[in-house]
Amino acid sequence: MAPQVTVDSINPKVIECQYAVRGEIVILAQKLQQEIQAKPEAYPFQEILYCNIGNPQSLGQKSITFFREVLALCDHPAILAKSETQALFSADSIERARKILDQIPGRATGAYSHSQGIKGLRDTIAAAIEARDGFPADPNDIFMTDGASPAVHMMMQLLIRSEKDGILCPIPQYPLYSASIALHGGTLVPYYLDEATGWGLEVSELKKQLQEAKSNGITVRALVVINPGNPTGQVLAEENQKAIVEFCKEEGLVLLADEVYQENVYVPEKKFHSFKKVARSMGYSEKDIHLVSFQSVSKGYYGECGKRGGYMEVTGFGADVREHIYKLASVNLCSNITGQILASLVMSPPKVGDKSYESYIAERDGILSSLARRAKTLEDAFNKLEGITCNKAEGAMYLFPRINLPKKAIKAAEEVKTAPDLFYCRCLLNETGIVFVPGSGFGQVPGTWHFRCTILPQEEKIPAIVTRLTDFHKRFMDEFRE
Amino acid sequence: MAPQVTVDSINPKVIECQYAVRGEIVILAQKLQQEIQAKPEAYPFQEILYCNIGNPQSLGQKSITFFREVLALCDHPAILAKSETQALFSADSIERARKILDQIPGRATGAYSHSQGIKGLRDTIAAAIEARDGFPADPNDIFMTDGASPAVHMMMQLLIRSEKDGILCPIPQYPLYSASIALHGGTLVPYYLDEATGWGLEVSELKKQLQEAKSNGITVRALVVINPGNPTGQVLAEENQKAIVEFCKEEGLVLLADEVYQENVYVPEKKFHSFKKVARSMGYSEKDIHLVSFQSVSKGYYGECGKRGGYMEVTGFGADVREHIYKLASVNLCSNITGQILASLVMSPPKVGDKSYESYIAERDGILSSLARRAKTLEDAFNKLEGITCNKAEGAMYLFPRINLPKKAIKAAEEVKTAPDLFYCRCLLNETGIVFVPGSGFGQVPGTWHFRCTILPQEEKIPAIVTRLTDFHKRFMDEFRE
Repeated sequence: MAPQVTVDSINPKVIECQYAVRGEIVILAQKLQQEIQAKPEAYPFQEILYCNIGNPQSLGQKSITFFREVLALCDHPAILAKSETQALFSADSIERARKILDQIPGRATGAYSHSQGIKGLRDTIAAAIEARDGFPADPNDIFMTDGASPAVHMMMQLLIRSEKDGILCPIPQYPLYSASIALHGGTLVPYYLDEATGWGLEVSELKKQLQEAKSNGITVRALVVINPGNPTGQVLAEENQKAIVEFCKEEGLVLLADEVYQENVYVPEKKFHSFKKVARSMGYSEKDIHLVSFQSVSKGYYGECGKRGGYMEVTGFGADVREHIYKLASVNLCSNITGQILASLVMSPPKVGDKSYESYIAERDGILSSLARRAKTLEDAFNKLEGITCNKAEGAMYLFPRINLPKKAIKAAEEVKTAPDLFYCRCLLNETGIVFVPGSGFGQVPGTWHFRCTILPQEEKIPAIVTRLTDFHKRFMDEFRE
Repeated sequence: MAPQVTVDSINPKVIECQYAVRGEIVILAQKLQQEIQAKPEAYPFQEILYCNIGNPQSLGQKSITFFREVLALCDHPAILAKSETQALFSADSIERARKILDQIPGRATGAYSHSQGIKGLRDTIAAAIEARDGFPADPNDIFMTDGASPAVHMMMQLLIRSEKDGILCPIPQYPLYSASIALHGGTLVPYYLDEATGWGLEVSELKKQLQEAKSNGITVRALVVINPGNPTGQVLAEENQKAIVEFCKEEGLVLLADEVYQENVYVPEKKFHSFKKVARSMGYSEKDIHLVSFQSVSKGYYGECGKRGGYMEVTGFGADVREHIYKLASVNLCSNITGQILASLVMSPPKVGDKSYESYIAERDGILSSLARRAKTLEDAFNKLEGITCNKAEGAMYLFPRINLPKKAIKAAEEVKTAPDLFYCRCLLNETGIVFVPGSGFGQVPGTWHFRCTILPQEEKIPAIVTRLTDFHKRFMDEFRE
């Protein structure tokens, strides 16, 4: 018999799932890159400028020295006692590596850990959360994961029983959420962020969408909030967060708080507050609200995407439900230990008085201040372009400009059976090598068009990107203007 | 409103899923361990002896020096050029680290990689598969994953549409398979390994179970084969593998080959052959059979469980189906880079003439020969116990002895509402600190009872385990013998 698995006989949920961040545009970009490697004069540009994904180190961002020193020492502890090691590594990284190894049963960095992650590292993380929020954190509430994505999947798997279960998600959203909901067979219940008020999150909109979902027979189980926002870059005000907590409390919803950009805030008037801190400051305890906070080593100033470290802090569930979350974690045994160690490090970096402190602060602030400048430069550049308006990136790593496409461009896109925003991004890539992700991958108010652009290209490349983009955009509008 | 998520309102598939390797017995063991730490005289033993899980480094197995040297250098490449590094690291580990860094775009070990893993590392792995099998391997067929578990989930997610889709699984099986099938809502179609012929895999049994499933309206989509076997330790003969390939070819089934124990063969009369090699040697190409091979850095002589590295080699699917597998890989962005590097290292260890070669071989052979001795000692010990018979561990890391429990013991178990094998394992743990996993977690012929015991405790501890086990077993039988 011929092999039986065809695209018509695989799981339809897999077919339905979309993931634009690595979708069509990125596949085209990889193809162009290979062509340029083979034949450098193939295109009017010499390199592909990836602005599609929050992957800072792929664009030249340096890793934080202290973190990498500790990781190297934990990977090969045999050198800890050697005299040469003193010359190669900072004294506090040696000390930290010893401390971490002491926290690992048998000092075995090559062993599966506890399903939730190494207890000692969870202690460190819980203490750091406590110091950040001013409210207690329990190491037994921490589930360490290979980046935030598997944690999100785990919660979706727990909550979604059928297509009658809904998850309230922002639109625009990070497509991990739509993909995970599709894979687990649930229904994405959209709520729209208000572009006109800087991607404001209005509780009236939440209520409206919840009612509409209910009237369609959907049981809404959870609310996803991404703060700072991806792809929108907004940072929620504390008052707004309080209203969101109140809404989840009133409706009995799980608040799934994507807080992976907690270190990425670029404007002095805004500050990151964890939803747990907000809920506890309102007097709501474990008994009042289900709350899950996601954190990752991939973002912040560290940007260690390849290490796949992260955790979720899970509060407000009964012991019996917790047992099932533990079981889900157990099926994959544990997250990678290097990522676990790094998650403890980003939550507990060098402190005043530590040998590495000053160099660490210089590295950290160098990255964050440069990101803030890049965000501003790109925002200003977008806002100078005909038909484009762009909200400020208060935080995270993205801008999500809106483009008012001429009718002629929309028609041209229709003729090649392409969404207009994809059409724009494809033209941009083919002519300039710049990779944006079309807004349709994140969701947008029907009839509006956007794209996501990261602020991550190294600072010295930003002027060239602005020039190339500006020139392209002018040509594009000249071609399609009515 | 009170929080709404209770155990009655979570996904029933999650509730159904079981994972014995970290189940009740292990949770009890962790509790006893804490009690002993607090009060060393609490039990008639001073330590918990974990024989429940294939986690070698947690029991003192050393990591392979060369692998760890390369990982440390890749984690902190800044030291590569320092003179002290020459004194601390072998020349070939420095060279290998440089080579690997050159294979990583931008030398960025902190960046997300290609969704399938870093191309250069996949080239290394494909070349190693080719050298192992004598048949071509394509780096584009390799999907690197955080251990083998996520790869298994990915294939189950792809293949299972509903409870009408079945997966043929060995009984006994590694509970990852039953857990993953349950989580994805499919039906496990069991086929029984024949304990009387050393856990033989009979194609007649496969045919019988396939027919029975079909007559129950189940569409069987794939066959899982674990070779070398977990929990059974058997190594399939090449002729047997050919018959299995023929069966999958005839029935159009996907052959899911769990080959994570490919380096763990302890008997001279058996040799590991990959299913891909067997299929290709029969003249079957990509067009004839869907074949997926799983490999992991957690097993072998390396036992690097905590690093969560692995890959699957996916052949025989059309380009359109492959796109969906790629998309599934993309939703989690990539597997961890440390694990990816390690996967390339275990498939391409030091070669004759390399500086580290001799010390590497000494480390490798030391571990493998000790594992072979431990397997034999434990097998012999089990076979000396009243009512216990135990097949040879030809490979993998486990023994799966059968215990003929006295009726009185079965009755005593029933009285405390416990499966008889769990009852035995719980008594053993409470009296000796030894942790076995009850056979019911892996599946067994109804009315028979087994447990799984790893061969991983360090060699010097084996005699004490044998003594404690023998003494316990005698007491247990004296108490319950009819």
